[in-house]
Amino acid sequence: MKKQWINELSAPGTVSGQFAVAAKTLRDFARGRFLSMTLADRTGSIAAVLWDDAESIDRSLKLGDIVKVEGSVQEYRESLQVKIDRIGFVDKGTVELGDYRESLADADLVEARLRGQLATIANPWLKTLVDSFLDDSEFMARFRVAAAAKKWHHGFFGGLLLHTTELVELAAAVVPLFPKADRDLVLTGAFLHDIGKIHELEGELAVDYSTAGRLIGHIVMGSQMTLDRTRRIDGFPPTLSMHLQHLVLSHQGELAFASPVVPKSLEAILLHHMDDLNAQANAFMRIIGDTRKRESEWSDYQNIIDRQIWTGDAG
Amino acid sequence: MKKQWINELSAPGTVSGQFAVAAKTLRDFARGRFLSMTLADRTGSIAAVLWDDAESIDRSLKLGDIVKVEGSVQEYRESLQVKIDRIGFVDKGTVELGDYRESLADADLVEARLRGQLATIANPWLKTLVDSFLDDSEFMARFRVAAAAKKWHHGFFGGLLLHTTELVELAAAVVPLFPKADRDLVLTGAFLHDIGKIHELEGELAVDYSTAGRLIGHIVMGSQMTLDRTRRIDGFPPTLSMHLQHLVLSHQGELAFASPVVPKSLEAILLHHMDDLNAQANAFMRIIGDTRKRESEWSDYQNIIDRQIWTGDAG
Amino acid sequence: MKKQWINELSAPGTVSGQFAVAAKTLRDFARGRFLSMTLADRTGSIAAVLWDDAESIDRSLKLGDIVKVEGSVQEYRESLQVKIDRIGFVDKGTVELGDYRESLADADLVEARLRGQLATIANPWLKTLVDSFLDDSEFMARFRVAAAAKKWHHGFFGGLLLHTTELVELAAAVVPLFPKADRDLVLTGAFLHDIGKIHELEGELAVDYSTAGRLIGHIVMGSQMTLDRTRRIDGFPPTLSMHLQHLVLSHQGELAFASPVVPKSLEAILLHHMDDLNAQANAFMRIIGDTRKRESEWSDYQNIIDRQIWTGDAG
Amino acid sequence: MKKQWINELSAPGTVSGQFAVAAKTLRDFARGRFLSMTLADRTGSIAAVLWDDAESIDRSLKLGDIVKVEGSVQEYRESLQVKIDRIGFVDKGTVELGDYRESLADADLVEARLRGQLATIANPWLKTLVDSFLDDSEFMARFRVAAAAKKWHHGFFGGLLLHTTELVELAAAVVPLFPKADRDLVLTGAFLHDIGKIHELEGELAVDYSTAGRLIGHIVMGSQMTLDRTRRIDGFPPTLSMHLQHLVLSHQGELAFASPVVPKSLEAILLHHMDDLNAQANAFMRIIGDTRKRESEWSDYQNIIDRQIWTGDAG
Amino acid sequence: MKKQWINELSAPGTVSGQFAVAAKTLRDFARGRFLSMTLADRTGSIAAVLWDDAESIDRSLKLGDIVKVEGSVQEYRESLQVKIDRIGFVDKGTVELGDYRESLADADLVEARLRGQLATIANPWLKTLVDSFLDDSEFMARFRVAAAAKKWHHGFFGGLLLHTTELVELAAAVVPLFPKADRDLVLTGAFLHDIGKIHELEGELAVDYSTAGRLIGHIVMGSQMTLDRTRRIDGFPPTLSMHLQHLVLSHQGELAFASPVVPKSLEAILLHHMDDLNAQANAFMRIIGDTRKRESEWSDYQNIIDRQIWTGDAG
Amino acid sequence: MKKQWINELSAPGTVSGQFAVAAKTLRDFARGRFLSMTLADRTGSIAAVLWDDAESIDRSLKLGDIVKVEGSVQEYRESLQVKIDRIGFVDKGTVELGDYRESLADADLVEARLRGQLATIANPWLKTLVDSFLDDSEFMARFRVAAAAKKWHHGFFGGLLLHTTELVELAAAVVPLFPKADRDLVLTGAFLHDIGKIHELEGELAVDYSTAGRLIGHIVMGSQMTLDRTRRIDGFPPTLSMHLQHLVLSHQGELAFASPVVPKSLEAILLHHMDDLNAQANAFMRIIGDTRKRESEWSDYQNIIDRQIWTGDAG
Repeated sequence: MKKQWINELSAPGTVSGQFAVAAKTLRDFARGRFLSMTLADRTGSIAAVLWDDAESIDRSLKLGDIVKVEGSVQEYRESLQVKIDRIGFVDKGTVELGDYRESLADADLVEARLRGQLATIANPWLKTLVDSFLDDSEFMARFRVAAAAKKWHHGFFGGLLLHTTELVELAAAVVPLFPKADRDLVLTGAFLHDIGKIHELEGELAVDYSTAGRLIGHIVMGSQMTLDRTRRIDGFPPTLSMHLQHLVLSHQGELAFASPVVPKSLEAILLHHMDDLNAQANAFMRIIGDTRKRESEWSDYQNIIDRQIWTGDAG
Repeated sequence: MKKQWINELSAPGTVSGQFAVAAKTLRDFARGRFLSMTLADRTGSIAAVLWDDAESIDRSLKLGDIVKVEGSVQEYRESLQVKIDRIGFVDKGTVELGDYRESLADADLVEARLRGQLATIANPWLKTLVDSFLDDSEFMARFRVAAAAKKWHHGFFGGLLLHTTELVELAAAVVPLFPKADRDLVLTGAFLHDIGKIHELEGELAVDYSTAGRLIGHIVMGSQMTLDRTRRIDGFPPTLSMHLQHLVLSHQGELAFASPVVPKSLEAILLHHMDDLNAQANAFMRIIGDTRKRESEWSDYQNIIDRQIWTGDAG
Repeated sequence: MKKQWINELSAPGTVSGQFAVAAKTLRDFARGRFLSMTLADRTGSIAAVLWDDAESIDRSLKLGDIVKVEGSVQEYRESLQVKIDRIGFVDKGTVELGDYRESLADADLVEARLRGQLATIANPWLKTLVDSFLDDSEFMARFRVAAAAKKWHHGFFGGLLLHTTELVELAAAVVPLFPKADRDLVLTGAFLHDIGKIHELEGELAVDYSTAGRLIGHIVMGSQMTLDRTRRIDGFPPTLSMHLQHLVLSHQGELAFASPVVPKSLEAILLHHMDDLNAQANAFMRIIGDTRKRESEWSDYQNIIDRQIWTGDAG
Repeated sequence: MKKQWINELSAPGTVSGQFAVAAKTLRDFARGRFLSMTLADRTGSIAAVLWDDAESIDRSLKLGDIVKVEGSVQEYRESLQVKIDRIGFVDKGTVELGDYRESLADADLVEARLRGQLATIANPWLKTLVDSFLDDSEFMARFRVAAAAKKWHHGFFGGLLLHTTELVELAAAVVPLFPKADRDLVLTGAFLHDIGKIHELEGELAVDYSTAGRLIGHIVMGSQMTLDRTRRIDGFPPTLSMHLQHLVLSHQGELAFASPVVPKSLEAILLHHMDDLNAQANAFMRIIGDTRKRESEWSDYQNIIDRQIWTGDAG
Repeated sequence: MKKQWINELSAPGTVSGQFAVAAKTLRDFARGRFLSMTLADRTGSIAAVLWDDAESIDRSLKLGDIVKVEGSVQEYRESLQVKIDRIGFVDKGTVELGDYRESLADADLVEARLRGQLATIANPWLKTLVDSFLDDSEFMARFRVAAAAKKWHHGFFGGLLLHTTELVELAAAVVPLFPKADRDLVLTGAFLHDIGKIHELEGELAVDYSTAGRLIGHIVMGSQMTLDRTRRIDGFPPTLSMHLQHLVLSHQGELAFASPVVPKSLEAILLHHMDDLNAQANAFMRIIGDTRKRESEWSDYQNIIDRQIWTGDAG
Repeated sequence: MKKQWINELSAPGTVSGQFAVAAKTLRDFARGRFLSMTLADRTGSIAAVLWDDAESIDRSLKLGDIVKVEGSVQEYRESLQVKIDRIGFVDKGTVELGDYRESLADADLVEARLRGQLATIANPWLKTLVDSFLDDSEFMARFRVAAAAKKWHHGFFGGLLLHTTELVELAAAVVPLFPKADRDLVLTGAFLHDIGKIHELEGELAVDYSTAGRLIGHIVMGSQMTLDRTRRIDGFPPTLSMHLQHLVLSHQGELAFASPVVPKSLEAILLHHMDDLNAQANAFMRIIGDTRKRESEWSDYQNIIDRQIWTGDAG
């Protein structure tokens, strides 16, 4: 049973507990290598370093393993860090997995918000389709825990549910300003656009791309899942099924971003731009939050968007 | 006085009336040139052709001139076309200019919607700034009649007012979903982002780029207008002025689209993406409308976005 | 019954026969429009023009219609051209469709070459999969007549069969030089890579993109067809199915060319490069052939590859 | 009072003196961080490292602080380096700031060269404008000490004056070969093109981007300063003012390099190309000088221009 | 003997004279084709059209042929145009070729300017090399008459001499400002940079790319000519020869502009930027001149640089 | 005499032998630098580190030196590594150079394969040209030992011979499928395409770019060598020589890849695509081999092609 939680650790202090390995990298120092890790449980994550025998331990550890760790807690670069003295493996069969992953805190609430929005869909075919997903407990189990991306800071368990819910809510706010758009289609598209990620990303305790994710990708898998489901609904209009596949396939907006077709309907162009707006604004909010914590006016340089971000004016 | 209106013309029929020259191009045919024109008044616009003496008439005509036209109305390519037999100039001083431009029909209503949204701004500095524009009857006179773009189909008189109003309304719907953003700043930025266009585009009866518009551009001019106005408000916080200039300068989102700086604050990135979403969705709606009129499922090829657009599923 | 064949027409002469409408465009001339068409039957195609009432005839004609034409044959720009005096519709139910399309002459022979190569596949799963297509008479009927591209000069009926056969033969010649590659996989991938085109392109007598082709594309449709077929083979190894989907999805080589994933296996990179080599070399051969016919050393400028092509040295 | 100068330090030796902090970065080593700094005074700059308590000292130090340093001088990688044992803050009010910055040695001479060239401007409006800057002692004080860029090696105090003077001299040599160009305009444009940098870059003892520099940029600020100044000259021709703004706004030559408009006049295109030639040639000369010092034929790889530079042939 | 000169033609009038065919294109009109030509002699060029039998005459005419023309002169689009009634071939052996090409008027003077600049080269090897070209009467004969580009308006006979001379003069003005550059090398490089054009472009009376020009290009041919010549000078330093080849090969500045290597020495970067400055400024001057002739403030849209050019302010 | 070979070293163990320095880099560690080297002999290569006095030893060592090394062998990161205790120089005149470089094992066999293919060339001019290279013992001596690239793992001695032979064999397999291509030309082009590399890359015991290689490049040098050789064959057809130069100059396929002309003949486009296919497939095979050795399904991220590679399915 888990006795020590990450959010209870403080420095200086000692560690003696069980955690999941959420990330790991061998790093060089002058005359050898050490293992830099991220340990996680459902209360959060913490950096850790291991100096002795780092290479052979790295070879035997896999992402998502649960390890028993003994060591000390230090403050390093204004954050806490575990220095590992002893490490051992824990049989996953003996633990409660939910204890070992940082997850969306209020998943039930978020799911309720999502279900609430989707309940407003009037088109009977789309309603049937959406319900067939919502009523599929196996699908929903995966959809609720899936991450939306691989990187730890973006990719917590439940991230896909939160991202999807935010996009559906944005759609519900924006579509009324464009009355020519089919609201039910846009909401359904927002719900389905990233479902392929439940197969693209895998791992119960750490997130990585699956082989199918790398060879086929979540976009085509999501389109496939949509098609499979509409085929099972008797009489589902083929043009509507094709339009839904188009919404999923085109949602990245450009070929260069791995969409095999660009948006060609009003609903598709709205979905793409709302997804983009949501992603960018969320990234800015996270970076601004981190920067303000450091009491800095300007963020670190963000390579992915080639700029520093301004936290703005407190006045 | 104007006796014949464009929306009353039908084919076959005769024309004898006064219209503004909204566009004109000399075109080649096998052994010479003809003059292809767009005639306009406040009820709409119509294509016109002039065969005789086209080159010398072209030299003496300027965009925005008012001409007296005699000729016939024909159906050509499923539209009406005026074949001009005689043409003469009309002194602008003798006419009511408002009769000669296709304008936003319900400008008062649209302006009221804009004022209504802007009235919700609580920050006293931003309120003072916004009001200083709204209370400036000279500014508002230009702002109300200005076009948002040069091309006729996009650039009707009053287009800038409509575009700005739609963006402010979109901001009011979207910002509540991003509570860390400063709502007053985003709304003010949405109001100011394109004000430079009242100097970039010119013409009372036809829209073209001014020399200042080509040498300086609406983005820098709008930033300049914002700075000038904040300088006149005693005690206006310099950082707030700077942030507003940043919102205006960065709203195109990328250097390649003529913004000299990229969006670096949360408010700037929201403003840019909402402007983009609004522009794309409006273009799609216009193209879909035109395509459905032709009872076609797919639009003509749109060079500017390298695709045909699908009108979608009637079912 | 068809009495006059296109390859029997000469100038000056008269036309009185039935042909398919393989292409049509309204073109402008000085004071109106004329209809420029391509008429076709199985012996070839010929340009045609229609001057009177061009717009209304254009509206009632569809690509692939069969028309009865009366008129004259002229020489125009070193080619034959039909000047249409009278045109009327022919009921497709009354004719032998095969008489009306320019098709691969020796389709049986080409199919035999393809079947011969595919018969060398040893892997039993791939053999079963390939045979399930070859034995599916409905699939083969479409596969044999499908075009490989929309443009008439590239897109004759049977073009897909010829292109596929050439690629399979190239694979059979090249793979032995790369012994680490799985020959059976490469040959199967070459066979399947473009099968989605039987749904992307449509038309019995003229080739155009289908709505599904524009919204989903032949790449994703081909991947889907492959998956559907492997699902029907009991025990088909899932990894092998995934690899085949990857071969189809990645064969264009780059995201910018509409492949949603890039080639990531040895077989995928070989397939992509052989497809590219084959396409480029075929285009060069066609252009060189056309240029030599004109007794010219250099081809016209080829926009698609930004160069003129040299026919080279006769010596 | 300053007792020890950087150009008097030698290795091995001891340090006990006061210097400005011209640059600083926390760097990682195996089990922690050290602080890498550049110390400067008017005689030059030197690298320095501080191992103990590096993180907390980094937090309390700002660029441009003056510090009292005790430690030793070592030779490291063929250069001198200070190893800091003790560090303390010095009140800037107690020192002569000029002692603490590496500055253009012969600024009076360079300014005289600049004034000499500008004195040849004949156009009375441009002469008045240029003189209004040259006679503005506050402006000139900033203009003389400003750096032309942030990077230390490029960005010494006085760098803007030197860069501007060289460009004005280049203009004086080149424009006579293009007699259609307005010499006075080109010289004035060369003088004004980078004046916005006195606000973009800030720091009395170390150079960094100001918040205004990052949100607005030196190009728009320079255009603004030009406009403000011409507004104060009674009767200044508006077209001339607009042309000057265009010269400043367009001098980077392309939108991608942050110019919001591209050069559209003969004077603008000349100014842009001379600025580019000057910048590139100066960079090559600096790199060749550094490379020859190392007695090497080829420079290190220069990422910014993707190549190594050849020092050429001594023969 | 030539009796009628192009600069003596006026409209309305008649033509009966001999001219070179400097350009020709078959153009479509509604029901056929006409031949649009440029006729030239040493006094200038004039547009011409031929309606009857245009296709067969086009087939028998080659660029650079001399033709006897009868017809009339008309004013068309504000320029003169010849309407050809009768056309016949003239044996080139019977005429003075110099009468039939528009050439640099004062070639002797320009050549003297070039020789004057090159006479200042002090390095004995470079002096010997340059003189070996200047003393080679066969080379100079081709160099003096060659065009610098294919397009007629840029590519008059003697254009290469003029372009080279201007660049050498620009180098002589600019290099003194960069004293670390080897003046003799830069001047020699400026002289040699485009010599490959005497083989890339061909035609005595009309300019077109040669087959060698298309397969190898003037850059590699110029490098080859430089190498061949230095090989013939006993003891020519190999490094100097290599540097000269580098100057020629890299002068376009980027791989994308067909230079197989980028500039890597100070002399190479100076040469490239001066060539660029000269080309752009010359293009702007020509366009401004044309625009002012039309009494217009803004030029036509220039596709090659994606902008209109401003003729500027007469005040 | 060499007494210890690299393929006999094991860990833990001692080293006392002579090796070539195939690569070297100074690397930073916390408070200084160490020298990271690759030692090589004909049996392979091994990493080595040297800690003491690293900077001064680095200054006196050159790539390709032979050194006498004493030290120990350790296992480091799953590979062997030499820790150098003592190092001294060895006079190259006293050793057998062939003992000190990793070379193509079966060069005689590979050369025989190449000569066998080239013997099938029937065109007498091409046969004479090819034989003049094959019979030139000085050329063949360099051609046999040259590397095909700089990087050690790609650039072993003899790599150029192997790469050329594989391409010629690929050409022999592919050209028969394109009967319009001139087989003799393609084979000759494949033989000649990279011969410039014998001058671009230099070093008897370590591979680096020569100064000529950086200033001129192997493409232009290979074209030059081809031209020089055809000039020496009496009566060699100039067009054929030009075509061969075109094959060499255009073989990289695009200007951006340093070809100064793009492929414009059927033979040139085939040569380019076969070179590309061969290079990509070889890279994939090497990476897959390395990855399988590590018993991993996916390779490390390959920056040069922006992807990980899949080793595929063992089943």
